[in-house]
Amino acid sequence: MDGDREIEIRDAAGRELARLDIDREKRTGAPEAVFAQGKAPEETLAIAEALVERRGHALITRAGRETLALLRRRWPDLRIAAHAGTALAGIPPEPAPGRGWVAIAAAGTSDLPVAEEAALTLESLGRESRLVADVGVAGLHRLLRRLEWLRQAAVIIAVAGMEGALPGVLAGLVPAPVLAVPTSVGYGASFGGAAALLGMLNSCAPGLMVVNIDNGFGAAVAAARILGHSDQRENSRA
Amino acid sequence: MDGDREIEIRDAAGRELARLDIDREKRTGAPEAVFAQGKAPEETLAIAEALVERRGHALITRAGRETLALLRRRWPDLRIAAHAGTALAGIPPEPAPGRGWVAIAAAGTSDLPVAEEAALTLESLGRESRLVADVGVAGLHRLLRRLEWLRQAAVIIAVAGMEGALPGVLAGLVPAPVLAVPTSVGYGASFGGAAALLGMLNSCAPGLMVVNIDNGFGAAVAAARILGHSDQRENSRA
Amino acid sequence: MDGDREIEIRDAAGRELARLDIDREKRTGAPEAVFAQGKAPEETLAIAEALVERRGHALITRAGRETLALLRRRWPDLRIAAHAGTALAGIPPEPAPGRGWVAIAAAGTSDLPVAEEAALTLESLGRESRLVADVGVAGLHRLLRRLEWLRQAAVIIAVAGMEGALPGVLAGLVPAPVLAVPTSVGYGASFGGAAALLGMLNSCAPGLMVVNIDNGFGAAVAAARILGHSDQRENSRA
Amino acid sequence: MDGDREIEIRDAAGRELARLDIDREKRTGAPEAVFAQGKAPEETLAIAEALVERRGHALITRAGRETLALLRRRWPDLRIAAHAGTALAGIPPEPAPGRGWVAIAAAGTSDLPVAEEAALTLESLGRESRLVADVGVAGLHRLLRRLEWLRQAAVIIAVAGMEGALPGVLAGLVPAPVLAVPTSVGYGASFGGAAALLGMLNSCAPGLMVVNIDNGFGAAVAAARILGHSDQRENSRA
Amino acid sequence: MDGDREIEIRDAAGRELARLDIDREKRTGAPEAVFAQGKAPEETLAIAEALVERRGHALITRAGRETLALLRRRWPDLRIAAHAGTALAGIPPEPAPGRGWVAIAAAGTSDLPVAEEAALTLESLGRESRLVADVGVAGLHRLLRRLEWLRQAAVIIAVAGMEGALPGVLAGLVPAPVLAVPTSVGYGASFGGAAALLGMLNSCAPGLMVVNIDNGFGAAVAAARILGHSDQRENSRA
Amino acid sequence: MDGDREIEIRDAAGRELARLDIDREKRTGAPEAVFAQGKAPEETLAIAEALVERRGHALITRAGRETLALLRRRWPDLRIAAHAGTALAGIPPEPAPGRGWVAIAAAGTSDLPVAEEAALTLESLGRESRLVADVGVAGLHRLLRRLEWLRQAAVIIAVAGMEGALPGVLAGLVPAPVLAVPTSVGYGASFGGAAALLGMLNSCAPGLMVVNIDNGFGAAVAAARILGHSDQRENSRA
Amino acid sequence: MDGDREIEIRDAAGRELARLDIDREKRTGAPEAVFAQGKAPEETLAIAEALVERRGHALITRAGRETLALLRRRWPDLRIAAHAGTALAGIPPEPAPGRGWVAIAAAGTSDLPVAEEAALTLESLGRESRLVADVGVAGLHRLLRRLEWLRQAAVIIAVAGMEGALPGVLAGLVPAPVLAVPTSVGYGASFGGAAALLGMLNSCAPGLMVVNIDNGFGAAVAAARILGHSDQRENSRA
Amino acid sequence: MDGDREIEIRDAAGRELARLDIDREKRTGAPEAVFAQGKAPEETLAIAEALVERRGHALITRAGRETLALLRRRWPDLRIAAHAGTALAGIPPEPAPGRGWVAIAAAGTSDLPVAEEAALTLESLGRESRLVADVGVAGLHRLLRRLEWLRQAAVIIAVAGMEGALPGVLAGLVPAPVLAVPTSVGYGASFGGAAALLGMLNSCAPGLMVVNIDNGFGAAVAAARILGHSDQRENSRA
Repeated sequence: MDGDREIEIRDAAGRELARLDIDREKRTGAPEAVFAQGKAPEETLAIAEALVERRGHALITRAGRETLALLRRRWPDLRIAAHAGTALAGIPPEPAPGRGWVAIAAAGTSDLPVAEEAALTLESLGRESRLVADVGVAGLHRLLRRLEWLRQAAVIIAVAGMEGALPGVLAGLVPAPVLAVPTSVGYGASFGGAAALLGMLNSCAPGLMVVNIDNGFGAAVAAARILGHSDQRENSRA
Repeated sequence: MDGDREIEIRDAAGRELARLDIDREKRTGAPEAVFAQGKAPEETLAIAEALVERRGHALITRAGRETLALLRRRWPDLRIAAHAGTALAGIPPEPAPGRGWVAIAAAGTSDLPVAEEAALTLESLGRESRLVADVGVAGLHRLLRRLEWLRQAAVIIAVAGMEGALPGVLAGLVPAPVLAVPTSVGYGASFGGAAALLGMLNSCAPGLMVVNIDNGFGAAVAAARILGHSDQRENSRA
Repeated sequence: MDGDREIEIRDAAGRELARLDIDREKRTGAPEAVFAQGKAPEETLAIAEALVERRGHALITRAGRETLALLRRRWPDLRIAAHAGTALAGIPPEPAPGRGWVAIAAAGTSDLPVAEEAALTLESLGRESRLVADVGVAGLHRLLRRLEWLRQAAVIIAVAGMEGALPGVLAGLVPAPVLAVPTSVGYGASFGGAAALLGMLNSCAPGLMVVNIDNGFGAAVAAARILGHSDQRENSRA
Repeated sequence: MDGDREIEIRDAAGRELARLDIDREKRTGAPEAVFAQGKAPEETLAIAEALVERRGHALITRAGRETLALLRRRWPDLRIAAHAGTALAGIPPEPAPGRGWVAIAAAGTSDLPVAEEAALTLESLGRESRLVADVGVAGLHRLLRRLEWLRQAAVIIAVAGMEGALPGVLAGLVPAPVLAVPTSVGYGASFGGAAALLGMLNSCAPGLMVVNIDNGFGAAVAAARILGHSDQRENSRA
Repeated sequence: MDGDREIEIRDAAGRELARLDIDREKRTGAPEAVFAQGKAPEETLAIAEALVERRGHALITRAGRETLALLRRRWPDLRIAAHAGTALAGIPPEPAPGRGWVAIAAAGTSDLPVAEEAALTLESLGRESRLVADVGVAGLHRLLRRLEWLRQAAVIIAVAGMEGALPGVLAGLVPAPVLAVPTSVGYGASFGGAAALLGMLNSCAPGLMVVNIDNGFGAAVAAARILGHSDQRENSRA
Repeated sequence: MDGDREIEIRDAAGRELARLDIDREKRTGAPEAVFAQGKAPEETLAIAEALVERRGHALITRAGRETLALLRRRWPDLRIAAHAGTALAGIPPEPAPGRGWVAIAAAGTSDLPVAEEAALTLESLGRESRLVADVGVAGLHRLLRRLEWLRQAAVIIAVAGMEGALPGVLAGLVPAPVLAVPTSVGYGASFGGAAALLGMLNSCAPGLMVVNIDNGFGAAVAAARILGHSDQRENSRA
Repeated sequence: MDGDREIEIRDAAGRELARLDIDREKRTGAPEAVFAQGKAPEETLAIAEALVERRGHALITRAGRETLALLRRRWPDLRIAAHAGTALAGIPPEPAPGRGWVAIAAAGTSDLPVAEEAALTLESLGRESRLVADVGVAGLHRLLRRLEWLRQAAVIIAVAGMEGALPGVLAGLVPAPVLAVPTSVGYGASFGGAAALLGMLNSCAPGLMVVNIDNGFGAAVAAARILGHSDQRENSRA
Repeated sequence: MDGDREIEIRDAAGRELARLDIDREKRTGAPEAVFAQGKAPEETLAIAEALVERRGHALITRAGRETLALLRRRWPDLRIAAHAGTALAGIPPEPAPGRGWVAIAAAGTSDLPVAEEAALTLESLGRESRLVADVGVAGLHRLLRRLEWLRQAAVIIAVAGMEGALPGVLAGLVPAPVLAVPTSVGYGASFGGAAALLGMLNSCAPGLMVVNIDNGFGAAVAAARILGHSDQRENSRA
């Protein structure tokens, strides 16, 4: 079976830190990112360095403050979505022309960190995205005013906390694939974003696709798969 | 302490069936209804008869098919919202003029039983209501087209299952009090209406008021309290 | 479609901080408040300043200590419900005469922060409220002693944690609309206020209306809608 | 270790049906009852017969209709709380004089089956009980009117579904031990009685003791332990 | 605002049965389907007839046995996925050539009804799909043997109950968009499909997109959006 | 209605801090305790001082470190169960002779804080208690060795976290009333004590009575009610 | 990769019913069983026949009454655990000598169906088991009396519903591996077996291993793996 | 009854700290460990010292940083799995030869703390283990490459967070007993590890055995029971 090379990353003492799945990009279209939760800052840095060295850039997610600070010392021009703990080191690939772009719509300003995680992830994957905030359903007119703009996107990522109604309303208005990202914004009976998640899963607008709470990263990878697919198919037709 | 008279209802064998709270209407503005769940059909009938005899009409909620059939045999002109198990026996009070009316908006046709329970309850309380269906947020234009009509209602009861987004969208569009009724319409992760309930409780449109799942009855009583209040206040100013 | 003007608020660097929904008050009767959760203190301050400048006052909710301190430095006479993270900057509208007042009943002293959030919100909306605490159902006599006073309120906001029984008991005693606010006061199987929330949703006293856990703000906006409605209706009759 | 004799009950084919814990009454003060859920009607009957033969009576709980019918054919004078699936075969012990009695208060008539299960269980244990229904907190006056009567009970079992507020209100009014029994009466967000259960566990009236949903049997056994204890202690002092 | 025409469907007595959102297909790319849950069989039939008359075919979901039988009497050549309650009446559009096809992979044979609902929905939308079953992760080799075939699909719909691991494993092996459909197949701690749903939402294979439990219909509409999008984009480039 | 006197406690600025329910002890047999959660340390101190002044002692529950330190500065001989946040100020009543005593059994040493809260509460109520720890069911022999001792208690309070099996095992061995207190000791799927709570509610040993998670205070008040009852009954027989 | 042969089973019309994983037994030590849930009776029969033909016997789980009746018509000597929906067709392998045996302990008679499913599954795998019932923790003496017998088992499967305490108590008494099987026996707050499941997962007796609710089949396969392992190891030492 | 000796551990003031179950190892094959959660660092140290003194080593679990630091000062060569709060003081028994070894497979590097807790526990029990990380199902090839190595283990402990799919995939590939350990690694809808736990309980690969979330300790004790059993059985055959 091909597509299965890996490299070991070790610390100074020779202890293995991680095994990188080098062929994941070849298999799935997206390179491995560094999931920093539960790793020491130095471990995260070492893995990120190996990735930057090997393919020019690395995306780090779920990083704490200390880790972000360490990464920034290493790469002063690090791109950061600080509230979401996401960082992009090195130089990502240039966006390919003619692929279409991803619209990222955040219901409220408090949902912006998750939306920015999605934007940074798309950048790391060489995809173009544009972001709009404060278009939640309590101010429907602001959403409707941007409708023509949203209809031009190839894919829409809709980010919302609380009751999470934005993606469903959008999916009733546009034909593009709509990716719904629930956020943990809210309190009380939002139960850490569960209310928004359930709302999106039960949307009466069919065709909505949902990812985990606060998972801007996952939504971006999914959007890239959708964008990428058509190119791939075109290639196979060539 | 006043406002506390009660009457006992007994079956043929002299066994006590219920104690009716005669002064509840005086205390709270709404007479006691018959909660049929867990009662034998004959018990429900006996209690309803006592109420009709005493104040001319009776509202029965959560009644099964057998109970509804028995009630209809007793009162051939019984008003019924069959899917919701609600019935109105006898002659309800005439709607008082000049009090305003309640708009009942159901997101889908599957939500109609709960909406009709609310309408029947309002009728039993002498309040006027008007009902519109199929105005869910997946077809936003149908909702917006009825906006002027909705703005003329004194109170709005918004009934929705699945993700339950309708009431929140409405509350961002009108100044009237909006009562949200989640329904158990849905499947899978709707968890019997819990998803709609959570969505409504977490609405980013402030001022939404929520009742229990499928509780069209409770929403109607609440709406009557709101309508009634202003009259009462006017009286106290008289 | 009218009622949809918005203004952008930008920081010194020109980065957009928020888009304010200027016509929300016109549409819904309540102006937009600043939801501070997830915003940097400076962002919250900038948005609040724009609102105060534009309409004379601003309500801020879910603010942390740091944000409250910053706001107080800016407006030394800031009104604060510190435990609930609510603040009122600028000069709110004068209460309109003859509209009736809102009774706010807190079951225990630990529920006071949420009750005070409701009071501050009503003040920001130009509505009169009066607050009473320590009237929980474990000391029923204290509640009954205040019954006559409660019966004179146009709307009642009942705030309770733990088992959340106060609103249901109240709704069985008075004809006014009763708004139930569950709080997160409690421990163990209160599950962050879920027990109180469920208790209120299942009250056997029909007509209870419920808002999210700790949502004194939402209850106040709902109460203002109820009060406002009758005036509006009177106007439309004029 | 003593207190551990058991007898085997076998069917006609010699297959073991159950092992009865003969000394349980000696150890714990209450004899073993027959839990019929998941047993064939004939199995339940065989076990009940063995118990009646051995100690003169048997209590059967969680029995379905078919099982109850079979039991009644065997014992035409069977005592039954049909809705709760509880039956008492044979002749229970005479109530001991001077031990005090148990008040069973049911919030609504729909809670009566569980209340009657408690009454039948107490009868099987030779304890006196008296039952009152329709004293839920929505009609507080009806409860207060029975307060003096309730204060004379040695133990109170308070049975309530929906929000389950009755036991907490009672515990704030009387000094006797109050046993709270949540019932599955309700719908929607009652989640099969979970709302009532949580309400009782979180009561702000300290000293409330709670049993499982619909567990009138368990409450009765607990009440018998409380009543019995003092006698026992007296004996040990003798 | 355009795209908002609707038609009313009435029964013989002139009672409105539903309002069809005629322009939904124009707005969103997918025509409205008939959600039969909570509707009488005759109502469902009447709505389906109106749709068939207007656009040549109609998809009906969540239909009970009685409704399916009625539909089949009306259209003897009705296409049915009986276990899922899905039916396709009339003649769906021809699959457009050159758009790619959707692979539907069901983990076990018990997941087939949901997979077939997806297939029937895609057929109603004029999209080609191919289905493979029994490729769950407990028999990994069977999945790996079909890997090349799966890599040729433009979109993959992966259907799985129990622990729901299939979609995540697939997303680590192919670059196409993977839509995960949890099913209610399982027992005990599967909690009606919640375990599978949570598994999919938490997949460590980034880019997985999830729909509601048993929602083969929604997955198919989402897949059609993904396929459709590229054509649309190509068009806009033309 | 009697039994309803209250006193107001105000701070230096005249702001009302609390209303004490002076007659609660007369009504319910237990005086009001100070629930410190959500109160400022100074408020708690002021209320405790009022209680000590009025009846000689005060029990404070759910107090944080800062509050406990403040209380200790005020009363250097304060009795404290620090981990549980419980304190007893002033001089509690002497235990009445001949009433029997309460056995408090803690499954593990980690459950001791809750057990000690129960002991301190009983002391404040003038009841005698004795405590034993490390008798969990994983070391059954240690429990059995103390069985004779446990059989001499008038009431047993069994405190356990994790799976919470101790109370059920005990209730199968002794005839005394057994009060089960689940604790939040555990991790993972203990869900903050919910696993222990559910275990106790579902015990197959009938007659178990359960209180809220970590609620040693409530269990002690309940035990006092049980002890008190028999005396009361004896008195009424005198 | 080896170990991956499969065979297709088709109905008369040539429609594929299932793909059997022929090499599963070789890979995992246990042959594939037929999971009947969601399959038509005829489908289950066809698959079972193919398995009996191929390896002499077949185990069917989660079968409904209709399916069991059909199987019994085909194999009159079918072994059935009817309440659990488990059946064993054909002639299972002879138990290998000298491997030790599995003790199956059921807490109550209502737990027997699940225990019998485990016994039948072990029989189908050629393992010896012995079953004892009615050894729940409420009658501890009955358990202790069988302790010596239990200590001779190589593996113990402990089956319990309600609070599920039996496995934890056992694991504190014996050194053998203890497999805990929660059952759905119970009501109210047992939440379909979730209470027993949580109790077992949180047992303070370390080393307990848990399977899904009512999953006697899974526990038996796990026990066979444990028994088998040692032999295997012995072989590898040979 | 034998096997029930215990020793008391007291602090300098003579206050009892714990009662150690000296014969647990004799009864169950595993000595008692020190559960540090909820204990003061000094208490934990005192108990650990008593155990080291008595049997040469002690395992401490759920220890906080402060406790670990104190233990390390006492035993400079303390073995620590710091992230999991586990420590091994003193000199554990030598691994017995010829017993086979335990493979510990961690899905991701973030799951390593739990895996290391298992390894340290096995070491304390005199069992050999080998650990491999980063073999999660998103990179299936890395898992398959280690398959032969895994097949040589006598028992496999599979540790995974997020969707928890690794153990199920493994159980479909090898015949050894597979112990599944869910971890709390994840965010959002992982609900603290509940998603992984549910996934493992519902695995379609029969024979999986599950322990509590993050419970590497429990998995290791279970693995030791499995390993130990065969030896024991061999002995009994000797």
